[in-house]
Amino acid sequence: MVPAGGVGSRLWPLSRPERPKFLLDLIGAGSTMLQDTVQRLRPVAEETLIVTGERHVAAVQAQLPTLPADSILAEPTPRDSMAAIALAAAVIEHRLGPRVMGSFAADHVIAVPRALRDAVRLAAAAAADGMIATIGIDPTGPSTAFGYIEFGERYGQGVRRVRAFTEKPDAESARVMVDRGGYAWNAGMYVARTDVLLDHLERLQPTLHAGVRRIAESWDGPNRATVMAEAWPLLTKISIDHAIAEPVAAEGGVVVVPASFGWHDVGDFASLAEITPADADGITRIGVHGSVVAVDAARPVVVGARKAVAIVGLDDVVVVETADALLVMHRSAAQRVKDVVPPLS
Amino acid sequence: MVPAGGVGSRLWPLSRPERPKFLLDLIGAGSTMLQDTVQRLRPVAEETLIVTGERHVAAVQAQLPTLPADSILAEPTPRDSMAAIALAAAVIEHRLGPRVMGSFAADHVIAVPRALRDAVRLAAAAAADGMIATIGIDPTGPSTAFGYIEFGERYGQGVRRVRAFTEKPDAESARVMVDRGGYAWNAGMYVARTDVLLDHLERLQPTLHAGVRRIAESWDGPNRATVMAEAWPLLTKISIDHAIAEPVAAEGGVVVVPASFGWHDVGDFASLAEITPADADGITRIGVHGSVVAVDAARPVVVGARKAVAIVGLDDVVVVETADALLVMHRSAAQRVKDVVPPLS
Repeated sequence: MVPAGGVGSRLWPLSRPERPKFLLDLIGAGSTMLQDTVQRLRPVAEETLIVTGERHVAAVQAQLPTLPADSILAEPTPRDSMAAIALAAAVIEHRLGPRVMGSFAADHVIAVPRALRDAVRLAAAAAADGMIATIGIDPTGPSTAFGYIEFGERYGQGVRRVRAFTEKPDAESARVMVDRGGYAWNAGMYVARTDVLLDHLERLQPTLHAGVRRIAESWDGPNRATVMAEAWPLLTKISIDHAIAEPVAAEGGVVVVPASFGWHDVGDFASLAEITPADADGITRIGVHGSVVAVDAARPVVVGARKAVAIVGLDDVVVVETADALLVMHRSAAQRVKDVVPPLS
Repeated sequence: MVPAGGVGSRLWPLSRPERPKFLLDLIGAGSTMLQDTVQRLRPVAEETLIVTGERHVAAVQAQLPTLPADSILAEPTPRDSMAAIALAAAVIEHRLGPRVMGSFAADHVIAVPRALRDAVRLAAAAAADGMIATIGIDPTGPSTAFGYIEFGERYGQGVRRVRAFTEKPDAESARVMVDRGGYAWNAGMYVARTDVLLDHLERLQPTLHAGVRRIAESWDGPNRATVMAEAWPLLTKISIDHAIAEPVAAEGGVVVVPASFGWHDVGDFASLAEITPADADGITRIGVHGSVVAVDAARPVVVGARKAVAIVGLDDVVVVETADALLVMHRSAAQRVKDVVPPLS
């Protein structure tokens, strides 16, 4: 199951509320983030479910034309990741009985899909044994942008128990963890049996569990709209990390498959530029259709421009052009882009 | 007479070879630089002549619809300011006999036209007496962007003889001249009797003089095209400063009317921004039709944009958008813009 949510507001003006990051071909691959996500997991998936906002159902359907219509679950409003994942688990159980289910965000770049699938198979095996399994990313540096997963004892070949999840660290803590080893980045990839997941949920978040079960029972019947209108707005807003991963890890019920598969979150233009090689003239062009000239300007990044672009006397500048908007920023300010969205989006 | 030439390449992408600075409404005044130039001098002008490139004749005619067609003199190629001014002088003499003629560039901003006209009247009186008169700008600071005119003895009320013209100075020389006083900026405004000007030219640049006289004699007859094709390409390329102002000043034949009338060369986007007040939010908008937001960005300047513009994490940035091009630069690099024109224009 693929939770396809979030605007990606640090990628404005490419991403918009009506055209969120997962619907975009962000890296110019010829396919969108959502299409890539589904495509790379197809070899290990019996069924694919997408959970997305009501306003994006038509776009998701258009991007995944072979997906059956009832494989897209529409959320009237976002209720955080636990509600989305639990809804998918409960609908699957109601339709098919218990199954091993993996949850994979719709807006990540993965350079080596085969390595991801190898990790998914290891995680699925542990999940079949009743564990909540997560796939952790081998850190490539002391990033402060992600939570970290601390390894416990060995669980099996290539699989460790999880001792604890930590929130996004400060720079010093990140440095210590990466130097010491025994940690992975938390990319929010979880694999579990639907019955195991829902049993944990019943125990740890009983209200959320009851609401999701009730919704799932009515999902494929005539009362879905009525039940959704009543029950969905009352679902607890909580992430799967806080609702299940952290408490169950403390009980010894979570394992991690550490892996490297060229994973990138691509949360902002600085990280988008990082994974895109510069051209011979030192200019990084992403989806650019016109000429770009730099004068006294080191390491420029130009995204999406259809016009002739000149950058003069500014180092590390990022220029993003869309049909109706223009972003000009310093690469180091990539995180601040979300602050322009309320006035302009 | 108004020499309307020069692209204004530091104002790319607003200015283009086919749409030079003088044809633009650069400051959003509702009229173009050329229209403003002609309009502000109309009260002191008996006739107006425009000397411009052949490719701009139609645009000049369209911008000045009441100007008689034979008041636009077309240059097949640019041959510098002396050829343009001498051609106008010779054509005037051939048509009307000797007259006092002033030459005023088509691409300057003047905030107080009445003060300019007062200076023109003083200059015209000295010109009628046989002097080459220039109007000098009271320096508002030690600019290194202009040549300086050094005052000699008093010539009359508000008029000084010119001791010498100096080239654009270095910063130290500019500082010394402005501190000491007795200098004006050379804005290239000359007023002279056509016969006086042409006599100086005959003496100092006889080849250029002969060519221009020959062209002027044929100008309003059937042989203009033939004579122009032969004679124009052979005219000496020289500025009026070097051809006449400097040598005649050394002989005591040039006077200057120092004046202040809010003169701006507006040669680049930094000077354009200087004469445009910022809005209450600190953003300078020139011809902008969309929203502009600045986040962690001091003193932004946005020119011509029709899209929503966001500037993030960059101080003193200038963003210029036209239908087909985009310039992003640091304000201090305004002079470097001309370097992008060859690859992109």
